[in-house]
Amino acid sequence: MSPRYTELVAGLPATVPFIGPEALERDRGRPFRARLGANESLFGPSPRAIAAMADASAEIWKYGDSSSHDLRHALAAHHGVRPENIVVGEGIDGLLGYLVRMLVSPGDAVVTSDGAYPTFNYHVAGYGGVLHKVPYRDDAEDMAALMAKAAETGAKIVYLANPDNPMGSHHAGEAIVAALDNLPEGTLLALDEAYVEFAPAGTAAGIDIEDERVLRFRTFSKAYGMAGARVGYAMGPVEVIRSFEKIRNHFGMNRAAQAGALAALRDEAWLGHVQIEVARAREQIARIAAANGLEALPSATNFVAVDCGADGAFARAVLEELGARDVFVRMPFVAPQDRCIRISCGPEAGLAVLAEVLPEALAAARAR
Amino acid sequence: MSPRYTELVAGLPATVPFIGPEALERDRGRPFRARLGANESLFGPSPRAIAAMADASAEIWKYGDSSSHDLRHALAAHHGVRPENIVVGEGIDGLLGYLVRMLVSPGDAVVTSDGAYPTFNYHVAGYGGVLHKVPYRDDAEDMAALMAKAAETGAKIVYLANPDNPMGSHHAGEAIVAALDNLPEGTLLALDEAYVEFAPAGTAAGIDIEDERVLRFRTFSKAYGMAGARVGYAMGPVEVIRSFEKIRNHFGMNRAAQAGALAALRDEAWLGHVQIEVARAREQIARIAAANGLEALPSATNFVAVDCGADGAFARAVLEELGARDVFVRMPFVAPQDRCIRISCGPEAGLAVLAEVLPEALAAARAR
Repeated sequence: MSPRYTELVAGLPATVPFIGPEALERDRGRPFRARLGANESLFGPSPRAIAAMADASAEIWKYGDSSSHDLRHALAAHHGVRPENIVVGEGIDGLLGYLVRMLVSPGDAVVTSDGAYPTFNYHVAGYGGVLHKVPYRDDAEDMAALMAKAAETGAKIVYLANPDNPMGSHHAGEAIVAALDNLPEGTLLALDEAYVEFAPAGTAAGIDIEDERVLRFRTFSKAYGMAGARVGYAMGPVEVIRSFEKIRNHFGMNRAAQAGALAALRDEAWLGHVQIEVARAREQIARIAAANGLEALPSATNFVAVDCGADGAFARAVLEELGARDVFVRMPFVAPQDRCIRISCGPEAGLAVLAEVLPEALAAARAR
Repeated sequence: MSPRYTELVAGLPATVPFIGPEALERDRGRPFRARLGANESLFGPSPRAIAAMADASAEIWKYGDSSSHDLRHALAAHHGVRPENIVVGEGIDGLLGYLVRMLVSPGDAVVTSDGAYPTFNYHVAGYGGVLHKVPYRDDAEDMAALMAKAAETGAKIVYLANPDNPMGSHHAGEAIVAALDNLPEGTLLALDEAYVEFAPAGTAAGIDIEDERVLRFRTFSKAYGMAGARVGYAMGPVEVIRSFEKIRNHFGMNRAAQAGALAALRDEAWLGHVQIEVARAREQIARIAAANGLEALPSATNFVAVDCGADGAFARAVLEELGARDVFVRMPFVAPQDRCIRISCGPEAGLAVLAEVLPEALAAARAR
């Protein structure tokens, strides 16, 4: 006899929000020449973070600090908030899972954009929530529609990524603040700012940290170049942050990752370097796109959505032909955003591979 | 207005199964001289694992492989099972959380021993399960009582650690197999073998990997010395292992930790070295105990429960007096096991500190 699963879990599919590049490489039987599909930071982490993680490896026999005290205090100073306003977790993915668990019972409504972050949707489904999706508007998440849908459905959470993934668009922080006026009573705004370090000044919303309507998510996976370390954090009201203590995996944080994140946070020069390099790479991707008659969309992130000029089937063909030429990229899941492919910023060498094979890939896709 | 928590989460306490040594050090205002309380491996990880983690630090910008393919395949070869029989997760703690989530709805019965692993209990409470506890018998988990309680309550899970934490006792693998005859239909045995590498040959139960009644948990935190890396795994039937794919944090595994665990698994000589050193340390702890008129209990783990010869209040006084002398140990939570303090094995220098201060600590505790 099988274990007696909960009714909810018995009804879930065995699924994975993304197929990782290593899995794709195993299926292909050979490595990619350019890994430009996972929104990773090909510029890497701060050398000080690398050194801190290497140093911590010899002490990995010790459990990590369960309260991430040093990192949390440094983050609080960085953001001008109290340490009690911050919880550190196993990436934004892990923290979003905890948030959904805290708020969503089977049947509860949750609102997001159709085509936005699949891992959030995975968690909502995993706790039996009912997802209500609103379409993008002009390739950006539509705040008015999100708020209206939240009101209509009585949603417990509305998810908004600013800047957006997968399109790279963004809203001004002031627009986010203004949209809060339309956030229904009792709906929490989960504001995913994973890419905010790449965005223009003013993109981070000036929201009172004790505003009980909003929880913000940040990460060391993007601008700090530590995706493989799994360090994210949520910022918000003390009372909401304290609630994570009820359910989180207290000893879940890798010790070396905590040390690395702390060193990364302190190396502001490296962050500045990465921001400059990402801006250059966005321009390079736009030039490569233009040279092939394609349009790169404006980006406030470390990736660029490139409009392939036709429908999703064509963009998928381009993506497949790039893959056949050993370039890993991904694409939006939903029309009409799926007319694009999404390309990570990286050093010139990696983008040169893209420049080399994109003409062939386009020709092959058109010849299908 | 606060976020609308689920009824279950609203009713949970903000709690932590353990206070970590760093938190204690902050409270004390000074570091411990000897860190002997967290069941960590003071002998450290394999130098090859350290090197692998250090090497991986520079590539930490890449997400870890979401299927832990290489590690999972190596573990399968190591255990003579299929890769599909293994799921890698964020320590046994993380995997126990997933297991409880898969099986336990609010009100469902779960059985464990009174005084056994608190983090399992934390997860059961966190999903609304009702814990039924049976007492230890002769300082060991009482398999007959566990099975009887499971039958009485219709438990979905019965938890058994073999060897046991916090007492260090163990059952022969054959006894575990025999006890399965009394496992009720539809109850899953969660067999936590975190310490099994320290136990006598034959402690690991010879259970068919496809036996749907049992899921086994192993870790790199103990014998492999990588507690801070957060790498555990569950082994069991393909169908049960596949169910983890429905809910786990797919990209939750640290990339360097995966590389370190793989290197650690391959360094059998280091494991053998640690096993020898732990056996020596257990004898050293027993000698220190005897020299102070105390009795060390037999141990099949990398820690030793030392009977302080009186009640829990006295053992707690000894623990506090050790702490005042900068030696970190912990103790069982429940009588009569709480007559003991629990001391991690370690190199001679750390245990020499214990030998130095234990007479004073005992005298001070007796003088209270």
